[in-house]
Amino acid sequence: MAQRGRPRDAETDERILRAALEQLLAHGYGGFVVDKVAEQAGVAKTTLYRRWPTKDHLAVEVIARMQDDVAVPDTGDVRADLTDYVEQIALGLNRMRRAGRQGAADDSSAGLVAELVAAAARHPDIGGLVRAVFARRNELVLGLIDRARQRGALRPDTDPGVLFDQLAGALYYRLLVTGQPIDRSYAERLVTGALDGALPARES
Amino acid sequence: MAQRGRPRDAETDERILRAALEQLLAHGYGGFVVDKVAEQAGVAKTTLYRRWPTKDHLAVEVIARMQDDVAVPDTGDVRADLTDYVEQIALGLNRMRRAGRQGAADDSSAGLVAELVAAAARHPDIGGLVRAVFARRNELVLGLIDRARQRGALRPDTDPGVLFDQLAGALYYRLLVTGQPIDRSYAERLVTGALDGALPARES
Repeated sequence: MAQRGRPRDAETDERILRAALEQLLAHGYGGFVVDKVAEQAGVAKTTLYRRWPTKDHLAVEVIARMQDDVAVPDTGDVRADLTDYVEQIALGLNRMRRAGRQGAADDSSAGLVAELVAAAARHPDIGGLVRAVFARRNELVLGLIDRARQRGALRPDTDPGVLFDQLAGALYYRLLVTGQPIDRSYAERLVTGALDGALPARES
Repeated sequence: MAQRGRPRDAETDERILRAALEQLLAHGYGGFVVDKVAEQAGVAKTTLYRRWPTKDHLAVEVIARMQDDVAVPDTGDVRADLTDYVEQIALGLNRMRRAGRQGAADDSSAGLVAELVAAAARHPDIGGLVRAVFARRNELVLGLIDRARQRGALRPDTDPGVLFDQLAGALYYRLLVTGQPIDRSYAERLVTGALDGALPARES
């Protein structure tokens, strides 16, 4: 059994993270209690705390995994791919917005995402983790944009980082600041805005 | 004196808010203590708590006032005006990012803004206040964009809200999520991206 230490760790982690996701979605950040996660996962609290020293650390890892569930399509149609991607991000954000709220009385709250952003600002190590998770994930979309640029579907001087910020940023801004809805229709308007630009058609 | 009750209140508020801004910038959100604000402003704690029941409420009002200090230029050159506006927002956000941090060792922290976003998510009344402040401020830029559209400097089908989200959203996303710098050079690249769009020049 001793040789299987590593795989057994991974299995335990998996069970803890699944329980943590359920607890987070059911009770929101305010009601997220690490001891309950340990109980639901059937592991000793010490095991859990050794791996994730605070509830913030655990929550960040859960969100990181949710990010990994988002597929980045690359069908060769950059407008359709970006719209699908933006819609998927919006769905994930809306799910986190509703976490822990039964009746969803106040649907403009940013919920979980806001708490994570604050945790990242408060603890440098969590901030580092969050930025690493996003950097790794965003790399995939930056690649998609860059390939479209290389095959001439986007302007040769397109800055992938700026285009990406325009899309992802708009979603997070609506979620975290203005509280406006983000849905498929918004995803379409957003991608259209970013691809077409706001200037009148140029004479060529 | 009795007739001057209203102006005197406004004066006291002004003194409290000035002291609160100083305290916030000097000590950050974590070190922001309402009692110290009362002391610095020379008012009774009860006066302060009657007007702002929690430190979150007071901090939101301070941020709201910082927003009001941002001018929205309208020179008729929409590219220049938007770039200046975006740069001003970036300067304000960077100021809040550095609040309470002497050596600025970890310059990627979102600082104050993240705490406010979380406070807005936690307390529905603060969320409502924050959204009202931003809605009122953003109205000015939406008007600038719409006037540019009407005089033909932007496409007739430009969606002012979407264009605005692309710009403001990108700044907040970098501040709150990826921790990347926001400065004049980024403001220029961002406005160029949003105005020119990512599609290759169209044949007309």
